Amino acid sequence: MTAQGLPMAVPSAGLPARVRIHEVGARDGLQNEKATVPTEVKAEFIRRLADAGLTTIEATSFVHPEWVPQLADAEQLFPQISDLPVALPVLVPNERGLDRALALGARRVAVFASATESFAKANLNRTVDEALAMFEPVVGRAKAEGGHVRGYLSMCFGDPWEGPVPIPQVVRVCRALLDMGCDELSLGDTIGVATPGHVEALLTELTGRGTPVDTLAVHFHDTYGQALANTLAALRLGVTTVDASAGGLGGCPYAKSATGNLATEDLVWMLRGLGIDTGVDLDRLTATSVWMAGQLGRPSPSRTVRALSHQE
Amino acid sequence: MTAQGLPMAVPSAGLPARVRIHEVGARDGLQNEKATVPTEVKAEFIRRLADAGLTTIEATSFVHPEWVPQLADAEQLFPQISDLPVALPVLVPNERGLDRALALGARRVAVFASATESFAKANLNRTVDEALAMFEPVVGRAKAEGGHVRGYLSMCFGDPWEGPVPIPQVVRVCRALLDMGCDELSLGDTIGVATPGHVEALLTELTGRGTPVDTLAVHFHDTYGQALANTLAALRLGVTTVDASAGGLGGCPYAKSATGNLATEDLVWMLRGLGIDTGVDLDRLTATSVWMAGQLGRPSPSRTVRALSHQE
Repeated sequence: MTAQGLPMAVPSAGLPARVRIHEVGARDGLQNEKATVPTEVKAEFIRRLADAGLTTIEATSFVHPEWVPQLADAEQLFPQISDLPVALPVLVPNERGLDRALALGARRVAVFASATESFAKANLNRTVDEALAMFEPVVGRAKAEGGHVRGYLSMCFGDPWEGPVPIPQVVRVCRALLDMGCDELSLGDTIGVATPGHVEALLTELTGRGTPVDTLAVHFHDTYGQALANTLAALRLGVTTVDASAGGLGGCPYAKSATGNLATEDLVWMLRGLGIDTGVDLDRLTATSVWMAGQLGRPSPSRTVRALSHQE
Repeated sequence: MTAQGLPMAVPSAGLPARVRIHEVGARDGLQNEKATVPTEVKAEFIRRLADAGLTTIEATSFVHPEWVPQLADAEQLFPQISDLPVALPVLVPNERGLDRALALGARRVAVFASATESFAKANLNRTVDEALAMFEPVVGRAKAEGGHVRGYLSMCFGDPWEGPVPIPQVVRVCRALLDMGCDELSLGDTIGVATPGHVEALLTELTGRGTPVDTLAVHFHDTYGQALANTLAALRLGVTTVDASAGGLGGCPYAKSATGNLATEDLVWMLRGLGIDTGVDLDRLTATSVWMAGQLGRPSPSRTVRALSHQE
């Protein structure tokens, strides 16, 4: 599908040789879908993502089914895919969710914190610190079971109610998540407003205070088209884990069929052009997103998926 | 319309303080529109763009009306807007086009060359060198009239027939355009396949051979979502003129209502976040693109326009 020899691989000095993509399409991408996606389709999606070369595929969420009805089938889904030779992290919002995940043998889990009070209240009905207190035993028990814990941090750059988010406020929550034992942080630009200088400033502040850069992942949204430019800025500062969603799945609250999460294909196009290894087969991944778009009944918002699939 | 205080302005070291946007929506953006846009709508569009703070607005093209029927009204349009206090360059493909432009008082003109033989043949029905020979008297006469000449160069990174385009091949045509008197070159990624390392390599090669960076503009397409990341790479190397199209106007041959030219709004969002002055009022510009989308009967592909206009 890809045009012969394109993109041409031309490295840029100072970038990492390899990037690990943390694929979030099956969880973050699907969680806001209105129509229920059958469990078998989700399992097939995840199998195809693994077949395309993705090695970290967030599989589902063990939240209360009333919160996220789309992912209420986590118990049915996880055993269908747990034999795949890839990392399959799952979201766990609290100890009850952790119990369910551990019972199925999941050992890679993620908690979901907020850098702002407004979003903590809206999303978790708690203050930032109450949410952290809720996560502390989750992280502690997961670590005691030999698990690996990712801490998501939402609204690291801007908040729809509060506007710009001060960097020290973000750093404080990052520190709290690391101190309770998180192995990795995913710095989320949940509403897509970040720009490259802001990304550099947050990363520089974190690493300057001793946070190893390899514990930091970035999670950008393309709401304002900024995700890849922000990713490039993060790569220049040594970040090597980037979240993305196959086909750009993941609803934007503001626009139908458009553009929340950074599309994995757009990311892979850039990294391939930069000569950075991801292990991903772009044609297989694009075919997977085209297939999934067919399941969901609307085109992928990924520009690379659109360009490549119309060339077929 | 813009959320309070967003994007937060956080500069990044080594970037220019000011960027000039060369707005191409009225020419490059409209030229492939099937339905004829009334001359009065085009004039109003250009007036609104000027009112939004854009200072260089490519107005129309003096090509033969059979080639680009949409712009056959250049003679009617230009006098309606020529009093605006902004630069209004026009495309001239040959001496006949230059005659028409000069007769109306236009003194900023642009010629349109190709870095590849395949596109020169497809677009101009000439070899690369035959096209350059055709432009030579155009550039010479425009300069003799005290004019300013921009040289567009298409397919600087990849070509749909030839694949990756070797950098020395691009540099040769750049040199020829500069040697015949062009004041400025616009390096075009016509099919949107470039990535940041490739952009850096071409710019470094050109400036390393003595081309002043302030004679270079970049013209990226968002076909694969790469335009802003590529722009960031170009800014880091000192480029201060960036082509963009209000609302992302400009058809992509592969996808309906999607995404050819870099959207001016997405560019302004990034530059504003970086604290780089453009003189553009983002809310006015977005309102202009929403208005123009209404005239054309389909939504803007710009992500920033979509995000901001749905927040209204």
